[in-house]
Amino acid sequence: MNPAANFDNMAWTDSACPVARTLDLVGDRWSLLIIRDAMDGARSFTDFQRRTGVARNILTDRLRRLVERGILERETASSGRRQVYLLTEAGRDLFTVIVAMRQWGERHTYAQHEDHSVLVDKSGLPLAQLRPIDSDGVTANIDTTTVLRDS
Amino acid sequence: MNPAANFDNMAWTDSACPVARTLDLVGDRWSLLIIRDAMDGARSFTDFQRRTGVARNILTDRLRRLVERGILERETASSGRRQVYLLTEAGRDLFTVIVAMRQWGERHTYAQHEDHSVLVDKSGLPLAQLRPIDSDGVTANIDTTTVLRDS
Repeated sequence: MNPAANFDNMAWTDSACPVARTLDLVGDRWSLLIIRDAMDGARSFTDFQRRTGVARNILTDRLRRLVERGILERETASSGRRQVYLLTEAGRDLFTVIVAMRQWGERHTYAQHEDHSVLVDKSGLPLAQLRPIDSDGVTANIDTTTVLRDS
Repeated sequence: MNPAANFDNMAWTDSACPVARTLDLVGDRWSLLIIRDAMDGARSFTDFQRRTGVARNILTDRLRRLVERGILERETASSGRRQVYLLTEAGRDLFTVIVAMRQWGERHTYAQHEDHSVLVDKSGLPLAQLRPIDSDGVTANIDTTTVLRDS
Protein backbone atom coordinates (compact mmCIF):
# COMPACT_ATOMS: atom_id res chain seq x y z
CA MET A 1 0.00 0.00 0.00
CA ASN A 2 1.06 3.52 -0.76
CA PRO A 3 2.80 4.79 2.41
CA ALA A 4 2.01 8.41 1.55
CA ALA A 5 -1.72 7.85 1.61
CA ASN A 6 -3.99 7.83 4.59
CA PHE A 7 -7.10 5.83 3.81
CA ASP A 8 -8.37 5.55 7.40
CA ASN A 9 -11.19 7.97 6.69
CA MET A 10 -12.16 6.57 3.30
CA ALA A 11 -15.74 5.29 3.13
CA TRP A 12 -15.15 2.83 0.29
CA THR A 13 -18.10 2.25 -2.03
CA ASP A 14 -17.18 -1.43 -2.38
CA SER A 15 -14.18 -2.10 -0.21
CA ALA A 16 -13.39 -5.60 -1.53
CA CYS A 17 -13.17 -4.46 -5.17
CA PRO A 18 -9.88 -2.92 -6.35
CA VAL A 19 -11.65 -1.26 -9.31
CA ALA A 20 -14.08 0.48 -6.97
CA ARG A 21 -11.30 1.60 -4.62
CA THR A 22 -9.41 3.15 -7.54
CA LEU A 23 -12.61 4.91 -8.62
CA ASP A 24 -13.22 6.20 -5.09
CA LEU A 25 -9.73 7.73 -5.13
CA VAL A 26 -9.40 9.11 -8.66
CA GLY A 27 -12.63 8.24 -10.48
CA ASP A 28 -13.82 11.63 -11.57
CA ARG A 29 -13.15 13.53 -14.73
CA TRP A 30 -11.27 16.48 -13.23
CA SER A 31 -9.00 14.36 -11.04
CA LEU A 32 -7.99 12.22 -14.01
CA LEU A 33 -7.46 15.30 -16.22
CA ILE A 34 -5.24 16.80 -13.50
CA ILE A 35 -3.27 13.53 -13.36
CA ARG A 36 -3.01 13.53 -17.17
CA ASP A 37 -1.61 17.07 -17.09
CA ALA A 38 0.80 16.31 -14.24
CA MET A 39 2.17 13.45 -16.37
CA ASP A 40 2.61 15.94 -19.20
CA GLY A 41 4.59 18.42 -17.06
CA ALA A 42 2.00 20.62 -15.34
CA ARG A 43 3.19 21.57 -11.84
CA SER A 44 1.64 24.80 -10.60
CA PHE A 45 -1.98 25.72 -9.87
CA THR A 46 -1.85 28.03 -12.89
CA ASP A 47 -0.54 25.24 -15.14
CA PHE A 48 -3.43 22.97 -14.17
CA GLN A 49 -5.97 25.76 -14.42
CA ARG A 50 -4.89 26.76 -17.90
CA ARG A 51 -4.69 23.23 -19.27
CA THR A 52 -7.90 21.80 -17.87
CA GLY A 53 -9.95 25.00 -17.93
CA VAL A 54 -11.51 23.86 -14.66
CA ALA A 55 -13.06 26.36 -12.24
CA ARG A 56 -10.62 27.45 -9.54
CA ASN A 57 -12.69 26.19 -6.61
CA ILE A 58 -12.99 22.72 -8.17
CA LEU A 59 -9.27 22.66 -8.94
CA THR A 60 -8.44 23.65 -5.36
CA ASP A 61 -10.65 20.85 -4.05
CA ARG A 62 -9.27 18.19 -6.41
CA LEU A 63 -5.62 19.11 -5.76
CA ARG A 64 -6.22 18.93 -2.01
CA ARG A 65 -7.90 15.54 -2.33
CA LEU A 66 -5.18 14.15 -4.60
CA VAL A 67 -2.54 15.21 -2.06
CA GLU A 68 -4.51 13.65 0.83
CA ARG A 69 -4.89 10.44 -1.13
CA GLY A 70 -1.21 10.12 -1.91
CA ILE A 71 -1.45 10.74 -5.67
CA LEU A 72 0.23 14.17 -5.65
CA GLU A 73 2.62 15.77 -3.19
CA ARG A 74 2.87 19.49 -2.67
CA GLU A 75 6.29 21.11 -2.52
CA THR A 76 7.65 24.61 -2.51
CA ALA A 77 9.32 25.31 -5.87
CA SER A 78 13.10 25.85 -5.85
CA SER A 79 12.49 29.57 -6.31
CA GLY A 80 10.74 29.44 -2.93
CA ARG A 81 7.95 31.55 -4.32
CA ARG A 82 5.22 29.10 -5.19
CA GLN A 83 3.77 25.68 -4.48
CA VAL A 84 4.09 22.91 -7.05
CA TYR A 85 2.31 19.57 -7.24
CA LEU A 86 4.34 16.50 -8.16
CA LEU A 87 3.11 12.97 -8.79
CA THR A 88 4.00 10.47 -6.09
CA GLU A 89 5.12 6.98 -7.05
CA ALA A 90 1.48 5.83 -6.84
CA GLY A 91 0.45 8.78 -9.00
CA ARG A 92 3.10 8.03 -11.61
CA ASP A 93 1.88 4.43 -11.63
CA LEU A 94 -1.52 5.64 -12.94
CA PHE A 95 0.27 5.99 -16.30
CA THR A 96 -1.11 2.60 -17.35
CA VAL A 97 -4.69 3.73 -16.60
CA ILE A 98 -4.20 6.97 -18.56
CA VAL A 99 -2.64 5.13 -21.51
CA ALA A 100 -5.54 2.64 -21.52
CA MET A 101 -8.02 5.54 -21.62
CA ARG A 102 -6.03 7.28 -24.36
CA GLN A 103 -5.96 4.18 -26.53
CA TRP A 104 -9.67 3.49 -26.05
CA GLY A 105 -10.44 7.11 -26.96
CA GLU A 106 -8.30 6.82 -30.10
CA ARG A 107 -10.11 3.66 -31.15
CA HIS A 108 -13.67 4.75 -30.45
CA THR A 109 -14.19 8.51 -30.40
CA TYR A 110 -12.56 9.93 -33.53
CA ALA A 111 -13.73 9.92 -37.12
CA GLN A 112 -11.19 8.68 -39.62
CA HIS A 113 -9.55 11.98 -40.52
CA GLU A 114 -10.00 13.77 -37.23
CA ASP A 115 -6.77 14.95 -35.55
CA HIS A 116 -5.84 14.21 -31.97
CA SER A 117 -2.77 14.36 -29.75
CA VAL A 118 -0.47 11.34 -29.82
CA LEU A 119 1.65 9.82 -27.05
CA VAL A 120 5.07 8.86 -28.42
CA ASP A 121 8.24 7.26 -27.11
CA LYS A 122 11.79 8.60 -27.42
CA SER A 123 11.90 7.47 -31.06
CA GLY A 124 8.76 9.48 -31.79
CA LEU A 125 6.70 6.33 -32.28
CA PRO A 126 3.40 5.43 -30.61
CA LEU A 127 3.29 2.86 -27.81
CA ALA A 128 2.00 -0.64 -28.44
CA GLN A 129 -1.68 -1.25 -27.71
CA LEU A 130 -2.19 -2.42 -24.13
CA ARG A 131 -3.77 -5.88 -24.03
CA PRO A 132 -4.75 -7.91 -20.98
CA ILE A 133 -2.88 -11.22 -21.20
CA ASP A 134 -3.85 -14.43 -19.41
CA SER A 135 -1.57 -16.96 -17.75
CA ASP A 136 -1.10 -18.77 -21.08
CA GLY A 137 0.01 -15.58 -22.85
CA VAL A 138 -3.29 -15.25 -24.73
CA THR A 139 -5.31 -12.01 -24.95
CA ALA A 140 -7.98 -12.03 -22.26
CA ASN A 141 -11.43 -10.46 -22.51
CA ILE A 142 -14.65 -10.38 -20.54
CA ASP A 143 -15.67 -13.84 -21.81
CA THR A 144 -12.43 -15.55 -20.76
CA THR A 145 -12.15 -14.08 -17.26
CA THR A 146 -14.09 -14.22 -13.99
CA VAL A 147 -14.11 -12.13 -10.83
CA LEU A 148 -13.59 -14.25 -7.72
CA ARG A 149 -14.76 -12.75 -4.46
CA ASP A 150 -13.45 -13.45 -0.94
CA SER A 151 -10.08 -14.54 -2.24
CA MET B 1 -15.30 5.42 -34.60
CA ASN B 2 -18.03 3.53 -32.85
CA PRO B 3 -20.97 3.41 -35.28
CA ALA B 4 -23.49 3.00 -32.46
CA ALA B 5 -22.57 6.30 -30.86
CA ASN B 6 -23.79 9.73 -31.75
CA PHE B 7 -21.28 12.31 -30.61
CA ASP B 8 -22.73 15.24 -32.58
CA ASN B 9 -24.05 16.85 -29.42
CA MET B 10 -20.99 16.19 -27.26
CA ALA B 11 -19.36 19.35 -25.93
CA TRP B 12 -15.88 17.86 -25.51
CA THR B 13 -13.79 19.29 -22.66
CA ASP B 14 -10.62 18.99 -24.75
CA SER B 15 -11.56 17.66 -28.15
CA ALA B 16 -8.03 16.93 -29.40
CA CYS B 17 -7.15 14.71 -26.41
CA PRO B 18 -8.27 11.07 -26.52
CA VAL B 19 -7.91 10.78 -22.72
CA ALA B 20 -10.28 13.71 -22.23
CA ARG B 21 -12.81 12.33 -24.72
CA THR B 22 -12.85 9.00 -22.89
CA LEU B 23 -13.37 10.84 -19.61
CA ASP B 24 -16.21 12.92 -21.09
CA LEU B 25 -17.93 9.67 -22.10
CA VAL B 26 -17.31 7.37 -19.13
CA GLY B 27 -15.21 9.34 -16.63
CA ASP B 28 -17.36 9.21 -13.57
CA ARG B 29 -17.42 6.71 -10.76
CA TRP B 30 -20.93 5.36 -11.29
CA SER B 31 -20.57 4.92 -15.04
CA LEU B 32 -17.38 2.94 -14.58
CA LEU B 33 -18.90 0.85 -11.78
CA ILE B 34 -21.87 0.07 -14.05
CA ILE B 35 -19.44 -0.95 -16.82
CA ARG B 36 -17.49 -3.10 -14.33
CA ASP B 37 -20.72 -4.86 -13.31
CA ALA B 38 -21.85 -5.33 -16.91
CA MET B 39 -18.52 -7.07 -17.58
CA ASP B 40 -19.21 -9.29 -14.59
CA GLY B 41 -22.68 -10.31 -15.86
CA ALA B 42 -25.10 -7.66 -14.60
CA ARG B 43 -27.86 -7.06 -17.16
CA SER B 44 -31.03 -5.69 -15.59
CA PHE B 45 -31.73 -2.44 -13.77
CA THR B 46 -32.12 -4.48 -10.58
CA ASP B 47 -28.77 -6.22 -11.11
CA PHE B 48 -26.99 -2.90 -11.42
CA GLN B 49 -28.86 -1.37 -8.54
CA ARG B 50 -28.06 -4.21 -6.19
CA ARG B 51 -24.40 -4.44 -7.12
CA THR B 52 -23.47 -0.77 -7.13
CA GLY B 53 -25.89 0.38 -4.43
CA VAL B 54 -26.41 3.53 -6.46
CA ALA B 55 -29.58 5.63 -6.07
CA ARG B 56 -32.23 4.75 -8.66
CA ASN B 57 -32.37 8.20 -10.25
CA ILE B 58 -28.61 8.27 -10.74
CA LEU B 59 -28.66 4.74 -12.18
CA THR B 60 -31.46 5.67 -14.59
CA ASP B 61 -29.47 8.68 -15.76
CA ARG B 62 -26.17 6.82 -16.18
CA LEU B 63 -27.77 3.89 -18.05
CA ARG B 64 -29.48 6.32 -20.43
CA ARG B 65 -26.21 8.17 -21.05
CA LEU B 66 -24.22 4.98 -21.57
CA VAL B 67 -26.79 3.84 -24.17
CA GLU B 68 -26.69 7.23 -25.94
CA ARG B 69 -22.91 7.13 -26.00
CA GLY B 70 -22.73 3.68 -27.53
CA ILE B 71 -21.29 1.88 -24.49
CA LEU B 72 -24.41 -0.13 -23.63
CA GLU B 73 -27.34 -1.21 -25.77
CA ARG B 74 -30.80 -1.80 -24.40
CA GLU B 75 -32.69 -4.91 -25.45
CA THR B 76 -35.82 -6.70 -24.41
CA ALA B 77 -34.89 -9.91 -22.61
CA SER B 78 -35.82 -13.18 -24.29
CA SER B 79 -38.67 -13.59 -21.81
CA GLY B 80 -40.08 -10.37 -23.31
CA ARG B 81 -40.78 -9.09 -19.83
CA ARG B 82 -37.92 -6.76 -19.05
CA GLN B 83 -35.21 -4.59 -20.50
CA VAL B 84 -31.59 -5.64 -20.28
CA TYR B 85 -28.44 -3.65 -20.89
CA LEU B 86 -25.64 -5.28 -22.85
CA LEU B 87 -22.15 -3.94 -23.56
CA THR B 88 -21.57 -2.90 -27.14
CA GLU B 89 -18.25 -3.72 -28.81
CA ALA B 90 -16.91 -0.34 -27.67
CA GLY B 91 -18.15 -1.07 -24.16
CA ARG B 92 -16.51 -4.50 -24.11
CA ASP B 93 -13.30 -2.84 -25.25
CA LEU B 94 -13.20 -0.84 -21.98
CA PHE B 95 -11.99 -4.11 -20.40
CA THR B 96 -8.39 -2.87 -20.66
CA VAL B 97 -9.28 0.34 -18.77
CA ILE B 98 -11.07 -1.62 -16.04
CA VAL B 99 -8.19 -4.12 -15.72
CA ALA B 100 -5.69 -1.23 -15.48
CA MET B 101 -7.78 0.32 -12.68
CA ARG B 102 -8.09 -3.04 -10.92
CA GLN B 103 -4.35 -3.66 -11.01
CA TRP B 104 -3.54 -0.15 -9.78
CA GLY B 105 -6.03 -0.61 -6.92
CA GLU B 106 -4.44 -3.94 -6.01
CA ARG B 107 -0.98 -2.38 -5.93
CA HIS B 108 -1.79 0.80 -4.02
CA THR B 109 -4.94 0.59 -1.89
CA TYR B 110 -4.74 -2.61 0.15
CA ALA B 111 -2.71 -3.42 3.22
CA GLN B 112 -0.70 -6.61 3.03
CA HIS B 113 -3.25 -9.02 4.48
CA GLU B 114 -6.43 -7.31 3.33
CA ASP B 115 -8.69 -9.41 1.09
CA HIS B 116 -10.04 -8.27 -2.25
CA SER B 117 -11.71 -9.77 -5.29
CA VAL B 118 -9.43 -11.23 -7.95
CA LEU B 119 -9.85 -11.37 -11.74
CA VAL B 120 -8.79 -14.76 -13.02
CA ASP B 121 -8.52 -16.50 -16.38
CA LYS B 122 -9.96 -19.90 -17.32
CA SER B 123 -7.14 -21.64 -15.44
CA GLY B 124 -8.05 -19.70 -12.28
CA LEU B 125 -4.86 -17.66 -12.47
CA PRO B 126 -4.54 -13.87 -12.38
CA LEU B 127 -3.80 -11.90 -15.55
CA ALA B 128 -0.34 -10.51 -16.21
CA GLN B 129 0.28 -6.92 -15.12
CA LEU B 130 -0.52 -4.49 -17.93
CA ARG B 131 2.57 -2.48 -18.92
CA PRO B 132 2.84 0.24 -21.55
CA ILE B 133 5.52 -0.88 -24.03
CA ASP B 134 7.44 1.40 -26.38
CA SER B 135 8.43 0.76 -29.99
CA ASP B 136 11.62 -1.00 -28.83
CA GLY B 137 9.69 -3.39 -26.58
CA VAL B 138 10.81 -1.60 -23.41
CA THR B 139 8.45 -0.57 -20.57
CA ALA B 140 7.42 3.06 -21.08
CA ASN B 141 6.67 5.57 -18.33
CA ILE B 142 6.01 9.29 -17.99
CA ASP B 143 9.72 10.10 -18.33
CA THR B 144 10.20 8.20 -21.58
CA THR B 145 7.10 9.47 -23.41
CA THR B 146 5.79 12.78 -24.74
CA VAL B 147 2.39 14.01 -25.86
CA LEU B 148 2.50 15.51 -29.35
CA ARG B 149 -0.31 17.88 -30.26
CA ASP B 150 -1.71 18.67 -33.71
CA SER B 151 -0.60 15.36 -35.11
